[in-house]
Amino acid sequence: MAEKTLRFAVSEFKDRIRRVKESMDSQGIEVLFVVDPANMNYLTGYDGWSFYVHQGVFLTLEDDQPHWFGREQDSNGARITTWLDDDHIHGYPDFYVQSRYTHTMVYLAGLLNEMKAGEKHIGVEMDNYWFSAKSLQVLTDELPNACFKDATNLVNWARTIKSPAEIEYMRQAARICECVMQTAIDSIEEGKWEKDAASKVVAAQIAGTKEYGGDHPAIFPIMPSGIRTSTAHLTYEADRKYQKGDVVLLELSGCRYRYHAPLSRTVYLGDPPSDLRKIAQVVINGLNTTLDFIKPGVTAEEVELRWRKCLEGTGVEKPSRVGYAFGLNYVPDWGEHTVSLRPGDKTVLKPGMTIHFMPGIWLREFGFECSEPFVVTENGCEKLIDFPEELFVR
Amino acid sequence: MAEKTLRFAVSEFKDRIRRVKESMDSQGIEVLFVVDPANMNYLTGYDGWSFYVHQGVFLTLEDDQPHWFGREQDSNGARITTWLDDDHIHGYPDFYVQSRYTHTMVYLAGLLNEMKAGEKHIGVEMDNYWFSAKSLQVLTDELPNACFKDATNLVNWARTIKSPAEIEYMRQAARICECVMQTAIDSIEEGKWEKDAASKVVAAQIAGTKEYGGDHPAIFPIMPSGIRTSTAHLTYEADRKYQKGDVVLLELSGCRYRYHAPLSRTVYLGDPPSDLRKIAQVVINGLNTTLDFIKPGVTAEEVELRWRKCLEGTGVEKPSRVGYAFGLNYVPDWGEHTVSLRPGDKTVLKPGMTIHFMPGIWLREFGFECSEPFVVTENGCEKLIDFPEELFVR
Repeated sequence: MAEKTLRFAVSEFKDRIRRVKESMDSQGIEVLFVVDPANMNYLTGYDGWSFYVHQGVFLTLEDDQPHWFGREQDSNGARITTWLDDDHIHGYPDFYVQSRYTHTMVYLAGLLNEMKAGEKHIGVEMDNYWFSAKSLQVLTDELPNACFKDATNLVNWARTIKSPAEIEYMRQAARICECVMQTAIDSIEEGKWEKDAASKVVAAQIAGTKEYGGDHPAIFPIMPSGIRTSTAHLTYEADRKYQKGDVVLLELSGCRYRYHAPLSRTVYLGDPPSDLRKIAQVVINGLNTTLDFIKPGVTAEEVELRWRKCLEGTGVEKPSRVGYAFGLNYVPDWGEHTVSLRPGDKTVLKPGMTIHFMPGIWLREFGFECSEPFVVTENGCEKLIDFPEELFVR
Repeated sequence: MAEKTLRFAVSEFKDRIRRVKESMDSQGIEVLFVVDPANMNYLTGYDGWSFYVHQGVFLTLEDDQPHWFGREQDSNGARITTWLDDDHIHGYPDFYVQSRYTHTMVYLAGLLNEMKAGEKHIGVEMDNYWFSAKSLQVLTDELPNACFKDATNLVNWARTIKSPAEIEYMRQAARICECVMQTAIDSIEEGKWEKDAASKVVAAQIAGTKEYGGDHPAIFPIMPSGIRTSTAHLTYEADRKYQKGDVVLLELSGCRYRYHAPLSRTVYLGDPPSDLRKIAQVVINGLNTTLDFIKPGVTAEEVELRWRKCLEGTGVEKPSRVGYAFGLNYVPDWGEHTVSLRPGDKTVLKPGMTIHFMPGIWLREFGFECSEPFVVTENGCEKLIDFPEELFVR
């Protein structure tokens, strides 16, 4: 059969399994069913754009490896990209796909019953993109004696502290991101098509560096201009040329083997107005003051509070969270949905956590962004990316 | 406030609303809650990469326009990209985002109650990526007197027949796809990095043509080589160079204002083995024989049967569906989850339907793909893309 392409040693996967089982056991979960593609990848290595149909990975407390199940035509993908033995890879027939008469969860329930796991305490990712309301309804109908528990983000939390091998991939993604951001800034010029700048950005994301290739990030380049910078998630306008007086926001990532290094910067075309200059100064000062404050033992909400203190008396307001954990991911989000830098988040920061400090400001007429992804170290934190922090003027 | 950027006339949006209300009424649905980003776009024009948090559009039978709700920082995006009046745009505070203590559906339930819609027959997209099991649980708890009905794909079905304006965007996407596919084939060469070919492909997708810019397709370029072509959804290997004897599959799309034109082709590096040549001939003959058969009034399963007859006695087998409706979409799929060309699908084809005929063959050691997207016309069907159908040899 096909040679396997693994991004980590099998021993690292086995360590992940041990940590996830500990978490399952502590929550009273005997069988964990995981549909999030990043969580599937984390436990097995599986890497394919097949998540648009129902698929998943399940792990019992007894077994030493998880089971992958997916569409039959994707099962060779599992053989190639996972560390699983062939008898842990299950392809389902094509008639389950988007059927009006049956559902893929019927197939999964059959598998679980076969393995005598259909009457257990089963953890499912209740609030995940890939676990629909219908999926739970069908599983509940098919497994009337199972006890379903909410295991949303159980594996995500196991992912928050990165291994040295993971951090190495994130450093590679960071090198890619530096190329990507420089490409973006160099491509933005009055009178040039926005689409051409975006085209160069996506090309740089995949081309990577001389040493290693890039991967498609979990979020498409966010690079709006003008009035479109007054909001967080618009991008370039396909048929518009950059104009004098444009603010251009850049929220871009490098990606390596699905590990991210995201970064935000802002460009102004022309002579920046004084209010934008002032916001830039406040944000960049606040960013660095806050990063200096971060070390193991401080909580996520204390980090946000330190940031908020930097804004006092400046007139700049930031009503949304200022950062989030990130790492391995697929569309639609490189965030891990665990640690958020905001009031009320009691998470104690630990070495190996990777967080994107992202104090995006979106006002009525324009926005400003300057962010830094960092890794928590033994004594403080370290910026993953080396890129000037300024309002770029073109 | 910001000038609106609409891709269609307001009258076209109103026509869509009328057709969707007809479908709601026929299914006993008084309030439709839509979370699929393509369905949100179809009804309102909303276009932003904000679907990684809970958001949606709801429509009551009484109101003449839908309501948009999403994160406060995205509400300017709704003001810019939708035809909705300001009082139909609702931004929710940031503490709802990925909270461990509340849920965005609590906010939605409040909105529905305010509008006296919380005790009605409410249709929800039960089996959609963006409607999690948790979302339904929270809505059910918050609106104990509502009657929830499954409205999965209700708007998708309203989307199957495209308007002239939609088909015009798909023709533009088709022109982009022709450039993209040619770029891919030109970039694949023995000894060249796979990542560099992929980089050129994504750049071409966004650069578009001289006349108009491209958009990011709903599926990342699928362009595996060698053994990775034995399965459907792997892509390039970031650190590998193309080798003599490689099969390379290309499943790529052009995209214009989120409307797609996907295409598959296959490249061989070197002198193709006779079994691959034979499969190519069988598939390409079958493809054209089947397209000749298609016209309004035939059913989806009859199309598949015609294709299957072409395979008889050839030794080529194709156990999965051979095509699906496509058009407007976001990640993770450009397919519309409505019409499938497969046994049992009784859908009667009508003028304006757009379908990707995709007879992908994935064998133990390699695969072959040659597909055509088409629009059903008054008398037959028309290929949207003009690109040679052959096994490309490099």
